[in-house]
Amino acid sequence: MPLTRFSVSLDSRLVRRFDARIAEEKLPTRSKAIGDLMRAALVKSEWAADGEVAGAIVLVYDHHRHDVVRRLTQAQHDAHHLIISTQHVHLDHDNCLEIIAVRGRSREIEGLLRRLKALKGIKHAALAAGSTGRKLA
Amino acid sequence: MPLTRFSVSLDSRLVRRFDARIAEEKLPTRSKAIGDLMRAALVKSEWAADGEVAGAIVLVYDHHRHDVVRRLTQAQHDAHHLIISTQHVHLDHDNCLEIIAVRGRSREIEGLLRRLKALKGIKHAALAAGSTGRKLA
Amino acid sequence: MPLTRFSVSLDSRLVRRFDARIAEEKLPTRSKAIGDLMRAALVKSEWAADGEVAGAIVLVYDHHRHDVVRRLTQAQHDAHHLIISTQHVHLDHDNCLEIIAVRGRSREIEGLLRRLKALKGIKHAALAAGSTGRKLA
Amino acid sequence: MPLTRFSVSLDSRLVRRFDARIAEEKLPTRSKAIGDLMRAALVKSEWAADGEVAGAIVLVYDHHRHDVVRRLTQAQHDAHHLIISTQHVHLDHDNCLEIIAVRGRSREIEGLLRRLKALKGIKHAALAAGSTGRKLA
Repeated sequence: MPLTRFSVSLDSRLVRRFDARIAEEKLPTRSKAIGDLMRAALVKSEWAADGEVAGAIVLVYDHHRHDVVRRLTQAQHDAHHLIISTQHVHLDHDNCLEIIAVRGRSREIEGLLRRLKALKGIKHAALAAGSTGRKLA
Repeated sequence: MPLTRFSVSLDSRLVRRFDARIAEEKLPTRSKAIGDLMRAALVKSEWAADGEVAGAIVLVYDHHRHDVVRRLTQAQHDAHHLIISTQHVHLDHDNCLEIIAVRGRSREIEGLLRRLKALKGIKHAALAAGSTGRKLA
Repeated sequence: MPLTRFSVSLDSRLVRRFDARIAEEKLPTRSKAIGDLMRAALVKSEWAADGEVAGAIVLVYDHHRHDVVRRLTQAQHDAHHLIISTQHVHLDHDNCLEIIAVRGRSREIEGLLRRLKALKGIKHAALAAGSTGRKLA
Repeated sequence: MPLTRFSVSLDSRLVRRFDARIAEEKLPTRSKAIGDLMRAALVKSEWAADGEVAGAIVLVYDHHRHDVVRRLTQAQHDAHHLIISTQHVHLDHDNCLEIIAVRGRSREIEGLLRRLKALKGIKHAALAAGSTGRKLA
């Protein structure tokens, strides 16, 4: 993992404010803080440009209703090429939190999110947009 | 689970456009489509108002670097009251995708996200903002 | 402007929570509240699908620096087909807030936003994603 | 406006990818690109922390309906301490785009956004979250 060292010239007040933020967020160094901003920008671009990405789809549903478990299983099998694994949490007697680890082209993952969200019985769906890490150095 | 039935009066053109969207998204009924929008708005408010929420934090990191595995384990144990379970994916030889199922007050979960993101070696962190489902009917 | 009246069947608890939100937000009726959610979803889709949209680009810059005023004027003239008009606020001795009313295809407007943001001297750029209103009934 | 010069050490692959992005976005220098990311992060924090901010509220409405013009004028006068000026666009025979330049504490501006959005006749409301520029160097 070779490093590149370069220098940056910025307004002193901006640097002071950014340093205050670094301290507040307990980030170890300016390089880590700047690298984080760069990587977040690159991941956002990967999702926008239909790149290969990874992440998680979170679903909330009541397992008693609408035969949702069977239909959810079916829909997940149809998209097995996008799904790595699933983690299931029993939130209470009725509610389930299902977290689906996904990997693939961003458009396909967004399509899967829409399909799962559309299922009768699914109360809520959310996405954590991550990365395969490969291009993040 | 008692149902409430009520009627809505809206511009005919708006209803037509919304129906086209329902067809496109393959949503089963207008009630499901409208319920989804309501629930998404309520979940957003819960997160904004520091309510009790659930969801997933997604981390991407290179397990070889900076002793990140040990420090990540430590940080997660410090927040064990917010963490339900963890799912780990070996993306490739170097990169890991770790998905942490979380539950608690939204401020605390956002604080945990910041703490994990700040760790040296973590390349990217993302959040899927879900719900405990309780108040979503 | 003909109206369409239809009925919706939803969980009673969900309806109660949504009604509480309606009261909190001081929305006049359920129909207005539901119509707002529908319109917001449709506007989001219009932006995603490169539809004809309208909105505002907000820029913050220091007019003393980098000949930014001249270059900004130039860039805006190059995109005159997307720009309706401009509102300029003198925030203080140095800082300007320039608000550019825009209308056109969403991809073109996002391209314009990127071009303006890239200009030396522009400190910050933000977008308010609105609509031409035509398809919102 | 004194400058601070400092050096950053980052993965070579990350720097290469970021440089490709800089070229694509036509950003003049790495310093401008990194400064933009820093400022965007700081502006986001200012909005989250109820700091003094500036920006624009965009409204779409049909001026024929619900006496919306009178009620909108009233609501804006009630919030005159937050509103700098207003730009009005006649989108077509029916639809108006009104862009309100705002400045004040972020909570107050978000409250104003909610109040305006709740008015009968307002079809859509959006916010461009900007800055007073003061702390952006």
